[in-house]
Amino acid sequence: MALAAHCQRRAGAGRPAASSPRPLPAVAPRPVVLAAAAAAAAAPAAPSSSSVPASKLIDGKGIADTIRSEIAAEVAAMKAETGLTPGLAVVLVGARKDSETYVRSKKKACAEVGFDSFGTDLPADVSEEELLKHISEKRILDAISIDKDVDGFHPLNIGCLAMRGRDPLFVPCTPKGCIELLERLHVPIAGRKACVIGRSNIVGMPAALLLQRRDATVTMVHSKTPDAARICAEADIVIAACGVTEMVKGEWIKPGAVVIDVGINAKDDPTAKKGYRLVGDVDFEAAGARASLITPVPGGVGPMTIAMLLQNTLESARRAAQGIKAPAH
Amino acid sequence: MALAAHCQRRAGAGRPAASSPRPLPAVAPRPVVLAAAAAAAAAPAAPSSSSVPASKLIDGKGIADTIRSEIAAEVAAMKAETGLTPGLAVVLVGARKDSETYVRSKKKACAEVGFDSFGTDLPADVSEEELLKHISEKRILDAISIDKDVDGFHPLNIGCLAMRGRDPLFVPCTPKGCIELLERLHVPIAGRKACVIGRSNIVGMPAALLLQRRDATVTMVHSKTPDAARICAEADIVIAACGVTEMVKGEWIKPGAVVIDVGINAKDDPTAKKGYRLVGDVDFEAAGARASLITPVPGGVGPMTIAMLLQNTLESARRAAQGIKAPAH
Repeated sequence: MALAAHCQRRAGAGRPAASSPRPLPAVAPRPVVLAAAAAAAAAPAAPSSSSVPASKLIDGKGIADTIRSEIAAEVAAMKAETGLTPGLAVVLVGARKDSETYVRSKKKACAEVGFDSFGTDLPADVSEEELLKHISEKRILDAISIDKDVDGFHPLNIGCLAMRGRDPLFVPCTPKGCIELLERLHVPIAGRKACVIGRSNIVGMPAALLLQRRDATVTMVHSKTPDAARICAEADIVIAACGVTEMVKGEWIKPGAVVIDVGINAKDDPTAKKGYRLVGDVDFEAAGARASLITPVPGGVGPMTIAMLLQNTLESARRAAQGIKAPAH
Repeated sequence: MALAAHCQRRAGAGRPAASSPRPLPAVAPRPVVLAAAAAAAAAPAAPSSSSVPASKLIDGKGIADTIRSEIAAEVAAMKAETGLTPGLAVVLVGARKDSETYVRSKKKACAEVGFDSFGTDLPADVSEEELLKHISEKRILDAISIDKDVDGFHPLNIGCLAMRGRDPLFVPCTPKGCIELLERLHVPIAGRKACVIGRSNIVGMPAALLLQRRDATVTMVHSKTPDAARICAEADIVIAACGVTEMVKGEWIKPGAVVIDVGINAKDDPTAKKGYRLVGDVDFEAAGARASLITPVPGGVGPMTIAMLLQNTLESARRAAQGIKAPAH
């Protein structure tokens, strides 16, 4: 669970604290020097010995790097103007290796863009009572405060995502990253057919809502859909988030479709050093032969998730600096 | 806007008030004598001179009457056990004839099932300040209290509707009524294709979420969908809620599909007394020729909306009587 814990006051910073009655100046989004050109020029991380041409690859890593540069520039500006530093607190329960790796990546990413980060690690068998003991009341309040729900998982955020005329305070990071990839690559969404495979609360469902908000005609297929392949084969945009190794075959992909693969699965591979390699929910080679654009795994959606978490955290800090608390939804 | 204002204490009722520290007994749902058989035997209100056979008609009025009988029996039992009476408060802003008619229907329906009802009518040009003056603070708090959001429109309710593993406190009345019709007629939903036409916050979007929760594969089509007819023609279940007179033509309907028509539109008809008649968003005759079941307009979805509002109000009162306030979502 990640939550914003920003605007820690730095000694010597020249402006009044956020609690001061004197209003803080608005931190307007500012043009920043983009690293886009350099990122685009770098070869995306395609799976080795792939027959999918590099021109079809969506360079999630490069785009995420660009976004992180943009964020770093904005953080520097915010610090200079307000003396405030965005911060991210992560509460990790249990010692799952993959979670630990993910948390380490988050902390590293925070440091790189100039955020503070705070961590609390608790054993997997922590009781609810113990959990409450370890975290201060304020932190718990912060944790449930929708203003700091930078994961975007609060049902109030999801409700606002679903409703026309409302805007969520935060959009869940992974589906937000999928849409960001489409938008940065100028993939048209309005009026197109989209198929979202999988309906999880953290990826599939919010991805469908985001596509629908952008005027796509969205079908969400799931484990109870009898003819997912045929439905998927009509889609101009496919977001695969079912968590099943290479479930989406080549024939599921309409020629020219854009394929966003959210899956990260370990697949046995005796030729690989570790005995396995990472693959997505899409059969990359077969789908890549038909798609016009496709995300590789790794190096596609993965890097975007943390970039979007940083973006949400910055947005939360920016609102706090402007004294906006849970604007009307 | 409707909100629960239930559990008004009646003089002489035999139990402590809701504010008493002594816990009130749970009011369990109880078996009631159904009016279903009688309702099913009555001929549904089909449009006059229709060629659609009565066996295909979904008798929304009859089913709504059954539900209202069930609610009346439960209200009587609740009053006897707890001395509490469910109540519904309606705030009407402006003097639109159709809204006034709807509010009158709500009040009449409340009286019939034994609810109290409360109304506040304000002019259309009421300022927000005036609105706040006319309603007591408590009423405003009640209005925004999710425990009394019997319309089910609060984004927190919509968020819980969208999320797996969560349940909204209240489901919006019209889409809830659509699903209730399908379920009372034993129309299979899981594994079927559903097409929802229209994506309003109060009908289309929540209808899609409800179908999706029941494991249908749902496509929501809307004004930006280029080939709505073709998508609709693949659906086993069609919910039309686009607000366009008879937009859904016969060829949009897959033979054997079940068609729920939410629309109520006035259509010029010189043969009718008033010079118009009410029609839905579906071309009833043409669609009825292909569908296995279809709702007439009027007498289909319409009566279900108020029945579901009464059901939500009763549910709210039942929770209040049990001392459950906003159970974990």
